[in-house]
Amino acid sequence: MAAQRLPSDVKPGAREHLMDAASNLMCERDTLDISLNEIALRAGVNSALVKYYFGNKLGMMIALLDRNLAKSIEQVKGLVEMNISPSQKMRIHVKGIMRLYFQYPYMQRLLVAVMRDAPEDVAQDVANRLIRPMADAQAAILASGAASGDFREVDPKLFYFAVIGACDQIFSARLVMNYVHGIDGLDEDLQRAYVEEISRMVMGGLRH
Amino acid sequence: MAAQRLPSDVKPGAREHLMDAASNLMCERDTLDISLNEIALRAGVNSALVKYYFGNKLGMMIALLDRNLAKSIEQVKGLVEMNISPSQKMRIHVKGIMRLYFQYPYMQRLLVAVMRDAPEDVAQDVANRLIRPMADAQAAILASGAASGDFREVDPKLFYFAVIGACDQIFSARLVMNYVHGIDGLDEDLQRAYVEEISRMVMGGLRH
Repeated sequence: MAAQRLPSDVKPGAREHLMDAASNLMCERDTLDISLNEIALRAGVNSALVKYYFGNKLGMMIALLDRNLAKSIEQVKGLVEMNISPSQKMRIHVKGIMRLYFQYPYMQRLLVAVMRDAPEDVAQDVANRLIRPMADAQAAILASGAASGDFREVDPKLFYFAVIGACDQIFSARLVMNYVHGIDGLDEDLQRAYVEEISRMVMGGLRH
Repeated sequence: MAAQRLPSDVKPGAREHLMDAASNLMCERDTLDISLNEIALRAGVNSALVKYYFGNKLGMMIALLDRNLAKSIEQVKGLVEMNISPSQKMRIHVKGIMRLYFQYPYMQRLLVAVMRDAPEDVAQDVANRLIRPMADAQAAILASGAASGDFREVDPKLFYFAVIGACDQIFSARLVMNYVHGIDGLDEDLQRAYVEEISRMVMGGLRH
């Protein structure tokens, strides 16, 4: 049984500490390439706990994605059911994605990396649980907007990539901000301006 | 002198073969993580030639970026000077980015990875030579469109990330197409549809 392998020096909350450490290191260093030893050192726990709690590094990354995305997935499902216009839903959805990425700038890169590194059945499961709900919600909002005449007809498959890519790039390519514009980090004004820019682009693209 | 270290078994065109091999492997495997040995094996040349021609792997990747982007950078500079409307320029520009990414789907990821891995002065040089011309051209087209009244006022810094991200994501996250939509690879119809989708979004976002 797994519990028998629990090291004797385990601290309360070690599982959460490991995920927090991985998340913080990926944010700080702007890369997914963090070793298990670095994560354990930051968390202040024995790296053997990764095996105990998550099986391996991939398992920990999937657990982190699950944790980070749980609230967003619940919210986007609720959003579809709300009694507001498709345009309002779409604006709220775009803001929600950006809020998620401001909190976890590595999110989209990690999702894709996990799907690439995982065995096919695990990757399929990650896609089903963590990407499909977002894609389905977008498709539902697009369909209701097309039905009400608010939006033109849009292929939701393509819409997903366009919107996610536009939202994500300022995080994935944040070094461009440093080296081309001499700006280090996204302050609140820049964050707000980017959300506004993406919203205008997405909503403008849905007009007839 | 470098020429003295040229291995005796060098084939004509070995420098190009190495860059082609690196490019093809990154396309096929949908990752930047390709070893020097794999590249040399695919190119059919001795891996010592990487050191001879490029200094190291980073040098080879920068040479590949230079080669891949040379034509696009020349074209986008010419586009700014053309005697057509800002809207026409922007549509042509978006199509140009997409054509570049269809040919080299790893392009944007490699640019960012190279900036992250390179010493700061090298990263700055890469940004100046390979990103700034694109960003400057976009800024010029946006400014002329705002001056003529065709576009609303847009911050070109933010516009760059939104457009590049929207164009890039279908390549960076192509596994989403596999696992969520069961579609393996982008055929010509899907490519055309995506270019149209991004164009509508970008142009829609520039309207008043």
